[in-house]
Amino acid sequence: MKHERIAILAHGRFPERAKTAIGVMRYGDTEVAAVLDRETAGSRVHDHLTETDAARIDDAPIVESFPEALEMASGEDGRKGDGGSGIDALLVGIAPIGGGFEESWRPDVRAAIEAGCDVVAGLHYFLNDDEEFARLAAESGVDLYDVRDPHEGIGVADGAAGDVDATVVCTVGTDCSVGKMTTTMEIVEVARERGIDAAVVPTGQTGILIEGWGNPIDRVVADFAAGAVEEMVMERGDEHDLLVVEGQGSIVHPAYSPVTCGILHGAMPDALVLCDEAGRDVIHGYERFELPPIDEYVDLYESLGSAVHDCSIVAGALNTRTIEDDDRARKAVSALGDDLHAPTTDPVRFGADPIVEAIVSEVPPE
Amino acid sequence: MKHERIAILAHGRFPERAKTAIGVMRYGDTEVAAVLDRETAGSRVHDHLTETDAARIDDAPIVESFPEALEMASGEDGRKGDGGSGIDALLVGIAPIGGGFEESWRPDVRAAIEAGCDVVAGLHYFLNDDEEFARLAAESGVDLYDVRDPHEGIGVADGAAGDVDATVVCTVGTDCSVGKMTTTMEIVEVARERGIDAAVVPTGQTGILIEGWGNPIDRVVADFAAGAVEEMVMERGDEHDLLVVEGQGSIVHPAYSPVTCGILHGAMPDALVLCDEAGRDVIHGYERFELPPIDEYVDLYESLGSAVHDCSIVAGALNTRTIEDDDRARKAVSALGDDLHAPTTDPVRFGADPIVEAIVSEVPPE
Repeated sequence: MKHERIAILAHGRFPERAKTAIGVMRYGDTEVAAVLDRETAGSRVHDHLTETDAARIDDAPIVESFPEALEMASGEDGRKGDGGSGIDALLVGIAPIGGGFEESWRPDVRAAIEAGCDVVAGLHYFLNDDEEFARLAAESGVDLYDVRDPHEGIGVADGAAGDVDATVVCTVGTDCSVGKMTTTMEIVEVARERGIDAAVVPTGQTGILIEGWGNPIDRVVADFAAGAVEEMVMERGDEHDLLVVEGQGSIVHPAYSPVTCGILHGAMPDALVLCDEAGRDVIHGYERFELPPIDEYVDLYESLGSAVHDCSIVAGALNTRTIEDDDRARKAVSALGDDLHAPTTDPVRFGADPIVEAIVSEVPPE
Repeated sequence: MKHERIAILAHGRFPERAKTAIGVMRYGDTEVAAVLDRETAGSRVHDHLTETDAARIDDAPIVESFPEALEMASGEDGRKGDGGSGIDALLVGIAPIGGGFEESWRPDVRAAIEAGCDVVAGLHYFLNDDEEFARLAAESGVDLYDVRDPHEGIGVADGAAGDVDATVVCTVGTDCSVGKMTTTMEIVEVARERGIDAAVVPTGQTGILIEGWGNPIDRVVADFAAGAVEEMVMERGDEHDLLVVEGQGSIVHPAYSPVTCGILHGAMPDALVLCDEAGRDVIHGYERFELPPIDEYVDLYESLGSAVHDCSIVAGALNTRTIEDDDRARKAVSALGDDLHAPTTDPVRFGADPIVEAIVSEVPPE
């Protein structure tokens, strides 16, 4: 699944609701030739990013359709006619609630396959199960990658993840899409800068797309959810000194809490980092459900986690993207820190150092 | 999936570790012609049951193999030669950890299919995916029922189960196999005797086999686990006054907690009944994990459940099958009641009345 130059489909959702797209652009090492978004077509990626993100993400044109992306990419670098098209894969960079495939994306996926490009998606709807796409892919000799399709052989957890040599940290959240994947990536980057042998354990489609391996826990049968996490921790836990397990959902989420619970018990973390978003006060997409106060999250995550393996929340990560002013963002960060009684930062805006320091001081990696 | 006279496979596990077999014999309305168990073959079902169970379960021979069961059944009632065999289905009545198929069962399943009997199983391993069984079944014109195979179309929860008219009660447990399914059945029986329009919401293979419908939550992908429960509660919640949702696993179980969590949040119960087994002090099959004190369970279940929908534990159910003496059993029941600060009983041994009374008084069905 190694591609050099991709287009990312994000119709109607770039950038706020395109977390896979943004994650891959921020942390992946694949060049992005274009973003497909009918609503913002004509503008460029940098027009929509905060300064912090613009500093880390390469600029790219936003276009209406895959054929347009192809034309632009082929024209730009003169690769047209050399048998390649300038783009070697289309990535579906958005994931609606429920993980379905939207029919309005079909012409772009079809065009990509017909142009000889692989298509990569992290949807619950598998491209390989789509009759038209499967047939076209076979005809064009391209691959369809459904990264949310778990591998065969995942089974029940043994309760053994606590035995690995590495310190295991898990990001947990107040809700979906508050920054658990981002925080996970930032912690590992900063830990590595400090000379700690750290690695990400990816549990969702974006993490898997960035890291190139991982089990999509939300798509594993519920009996095996903890086992799928344990398998990864056991596989990497003696190779590294610090594993940061990407959390999913939230323990108070009306739909996704089983995934959260499976990660918490399958990973058997030594420490947790609570991720929150400034201004979020109801569950995203489930507005009838108010977020409980922070101390309830602390109680829930620590007591549920510790029922299987002793753990505590050692740091907080606040996503302050909705706050423009830096001072106000710092105040929000410090308010979460007060509620948590633990070091807190916005890892994207202010760096993940306080989190890594808290981990090193509370649960030192060997 | 309606059968009149079945044989139940329970090799090496009858009766203690054959909870599906016992559940179907106790609560199902299908006649059991024989039990297959090589270890206890030659004895009879009643030789292995407590007095309480013997009063509710019909006696039957225990035999070595399906052909022997068939011979016995055909001989007994003279059905041999009328085109039928005296047995119309073989039920796999045991479910090892992991839900695998044991190869030592193959000759019996093969023999059943060849004799024109359906085969019903609740394993993670699907009989329909077994090449030999699928081929034989097609040849013999019989059906293989994998009740743990979820139906198509199960999706993400909407967080809507709290809206149904019925009072929703959920059984929750200190561990697997402590009596949640049994308690569920007993509550509904007693409630009906009292004129309450009550129904079971089955979430596991045994409950589904007894009730003839239901979603196997442990086999649904983790993202949809809560949704699969919600779907059932929504489907039946306006037809009855009391729904009792069969719990699964335990919130402190190293492998199965995601299933527990999905049921708790998908069902959005008004009240919980905590099920425990006398003398159980470590997780079954995971002996490194001690059961926490009862008050920790109360905190965990109530706080986790209430994060989505207000609920509390209103009663306890203690499985005292390991205690022979009635007085000692009563003392154990009363000790759990003290820990819970709630009415407690052994619903099989002493009746479920105290639980139903607690439900009626705390969360009266409309």
